Amino acid sequence: MRFIRYTNHNEIHLGVLSQDETYVISLQEILGKNYANTMQTFIEQAKDGDMKKIQDYLESHCSGVCIEDVQLLAPMERSIHDVIAVGLNYQEHIDEADRGFTRHVEKKDPPIYFGKRTTYITGPSETVYACFDLDEKVDYEVELAVIIKKRGKDIPVEEAMDYVFGYSILNDLSSRGLQRGRIQWNKGKSLDGYTIMGPCIVSADAFDPNASHAVQCYINQELRQNGNTTQMIHKVAELISDYSQGITLEAGDIISTGTPSGVGMGFEVPKWLTEHDEMKCVIEGIGVLENKIQKRK
Amino acid sequence: MRFIRYTNHNEIHLGVLSQDETYVISLQEILGKNYANTMQTFIEQAKDGDMKKIQDYLESHCSGVCIEDVQLLAPMERSIHDVIAVGLNYQEHIDEADRGFTRHVEKKDPPIYFGKRTTYITGPSETVYACFDLDEKVDYEVELAVIIKKRGKDIPVEEAMDYVFGYSILNDLSSRGLQRGRIQWNKGKSLDGYTIMGPCIVSADAFDPNASHAVQCYINQELRQNGNTTQMIHKVAELISDYSQGITLEAGDIISTGTPSGVGMGFEVPKWLTEHDEMKCVIEGIGVLENKIQKRK
Repeated sequence: MRFIRYTNHNEIHLGVLSQDETYVISLQEILGKNYANTMQTFIEQAKDGDMKKIQDYLESHCSGVCIEDVQLLAPMERSIHDVIAVGLNYQEHIDEADRGFTRHVEKKDPPIYFGKRTTYITGPSETVYACFDLDEKVDYEVELAVIIKKRGKDIPVEEAMDYVFGYSILNDLSSRGLQRGRIQWNKGKSLDGYTIMGPCIVSADAFDPNASHAVQCYINQELRQNGNTTQMIHKVAELISDYSQGITLEAGDIISTGTPSGVGMGFEVPKWLTEHDEMKCVIEGIGVLENKIQKRK
Repeated sequence: MRFIRYTNHNEIHLGVLSQDETYVISLQEILGKNYANTMQTFIEQAKDGDMKKIQDYLESHCSGVCIEDVQLLAPMERSIHDVIAVGLNYQEHIDEADRGFTRHVEKKDPPIYFGKRTTYITGPSETVYACFDLDEKVDYEVELAVIIKKRGKDIPVEEAMDYVFGYSILNDLSSRGLQRGRIQWNKGKSLDGYTIMGPCIVSADAFDPNASHAVQCYINQELRQNGNTTQMIHKVAELISDYSQGITLEAGDIISTGTPSGVGMGFEVPKWLTEHDEMKCVIEGIGVLENKIQKRK
């Protein structure tokens, strides 16, 4: 199942895509009028029976509103805490980042987490108004995002996948000057609009993060990042289990699992984003997330 | 005004302390039955008229429920985002932290921020169940916490103080092994229960963070930290203004402004917290925040 948020006639809806991905069906149509009106509450409330009802509906219906007639939004409204972002989780990205950026990280080292604050998540096709006035070094990072289904703590690795609601694409836009200059990455990662997510949340039953899925980012149609989920050093189950040791995860939490190599700062002459650039993030099995860059006023 | 949360006969209330700090008056008694029932919503909704009504009430009444008959809770339920925590904001703490802990920081460097995740804020007198099983290096950090009153972005320094609802004491409990071993501090700062706050929020009109206020922490009655708000390198107005460049602050956001020297890791033989230790954090003009340490089961 592919869960989405969208606007139709100026109203915001939760929905799912039809199996052929050409139609949009609202969750209220399937589950009733008074169902959750935010993705956050849907994730908190959705029971196995609801999920089955949606699945059954999709298998027996192939109509709805044409996807071209709606505007997709970010599948989550905002994160309930800061996004739990994982740093340096692909070896070739560690290598490119090693160029004077951070202290050396070994593959056997434990995962690195930082908080990426979001008051608003930028959705598919939305323009990002970059703060070039604060820092010209704006960079892209395509990542697999994991959305947590239910509350848990001290989760064993072997149970960790039970805590996944689904997966999405997250473009972890980064302001490298602010990130490098502050030792801790929070400020450089948390500018308004710099968390981009979409186009949908693929439910956990329909996506295996341990299987091979291309993780790519194109800038103005040039392929810059070309990784694969199989290259992740710390896998999804390990990240959930490790972070939850001593820390409660909650329904709706977002874990962004790190980016492969090919980011702008990784080039010998860094390739920062500039106005009018078009970013296209692709994760095989999830979809495409496209956004343009403008400078903020 | 000193805003508090407390339980009385098993019900949670918002309240204020009487001017002599011996009585507790519920906000509902002053403002009416249907007023906010969380500090978060109170901060979001409170208008100047409400604040004046509370002030007038306190000036004309000197009775209420005896403070000894209630149990104080953390003045905020939780943070709407991760706590915006400031690192290395007192020179002598930079010096003690420099011992192999982090790269050298200069006084003229910009502020360092990290996200401190909280699903729950530990309140006054509550026991902290420390995760010694994950990391024995548990450390205290007394800090002045700033609670944000209203939404704002790109806030000029000269307007920053208009965005302060009030001030509290925050004990930024830190798991140094996890903090040092992960490059980014999020995991070592975010264990459940490691954000301790209280005993009250002193309203912005009643506390000047630029004036001299002792900032102290005692462990088992031994004075370990003995700083002063005047020693802060980056002042409250600068922190609010700087963080808000490109980032929206929201009502209820918590900025914790860094700790003075004297933390456990600063001693030549580090003095980590152990079971049964008693921590007492004091900020002159706000109050006292006391908690005991137990090991978690």
